[in-house]
Amino acid sequence: MLRKVKVKDVMSRNVISVPPTEDVVFAFEKLMKHKISSLPVVENNKLVGIVTATDLGHNLVLDKYEIGTVVEKVMVEDVACVNPEDDLLTTVRKMNEYGSDEEIINQLVVIDNNHKIVGIVSDGDIIKAIKI
Amino acid sequence: MLRKVKVKDVMSRNVISVPPTEDVVFAFEKLMKHKISSLPVVENNKLVGIVTATDLGHNLVLDKYEIGTVVEKVMVEDVACVNPEDDLLTTVRKMNEYGSDEEIINQLVVIDNNHKIVGIVSDGDIIKAIKI
Repeated sequence: MLRKVKVKDVMSRNVISVPPTEDVVFAFEKLMKHKISSLPVVENNKLVGIVTATDLGHNLVLDKYEIGTVVEKVMVEDVACVNPEDDLLTTVRKMNEYGSDEEIINQLVVIDNNHKIVGIVSDGDIIKAIKI
Repeated sequence: MLRKVKVKDVMSRNVISVPPTEDVVFAFEKLMKHKISSLPVVENNKLVGIVTATDLGHNLVLDKYEIGTVVEKVMVEDVACVNPEDDLLTTVRKMNEYGSDEEIINQLVVIDNNHKIVGIVSDGDIIKAIKI
């Protein structure tokens, strides 16, 4: 089943992003407001990084950021991506490969052949697609 | 594969919980500190509800709670649970059934036959278990 369904069939198409200069506090508020768990960081229409609610929330609560820290300083630059035509098996493998022994990557950015961001696909989207 | 693996094989056993009288702000800080997405609410060793980082974060950022609101006032009382001996197919089905059309339930509380909380199982735990 995971081989038959494509990323484009299950991904969220409404992608909310932030510029590299966004304050981490505003970025976190944006994540919470929209109930999303990660924000692609975009500069000149190009994906340059990603920040997650888990990381920002953890560091903000533990007071680990200096006042005025921007997302560029704390973002993950090596963003795990998939193509909209990839199948869900490929997606599951990437979530595991890009993750650590402890934790998978819960969300992958979906990039088309022109390097344009067209969606986000999450572990929840995949579970939702498994109808057996 | 989902039929062969049991909840007890993939769940997190280190369950962090809160009492019903916990302030929502402290509950949210606990979620962020431990990088977890939901907290079972426990009273007299009994599961009475659950709160999620998504809901608490959303409402705190939008200033929707009065000062001093406790988790008991905002928790979900109908908690989606599975048994540690259930298989992952049952788990995926419950995540879909208990969720809405929009969104699955991302985490289920694992309760043994004595009604004791023994773990939490997330969509990420299931994706991690899918090794094909």
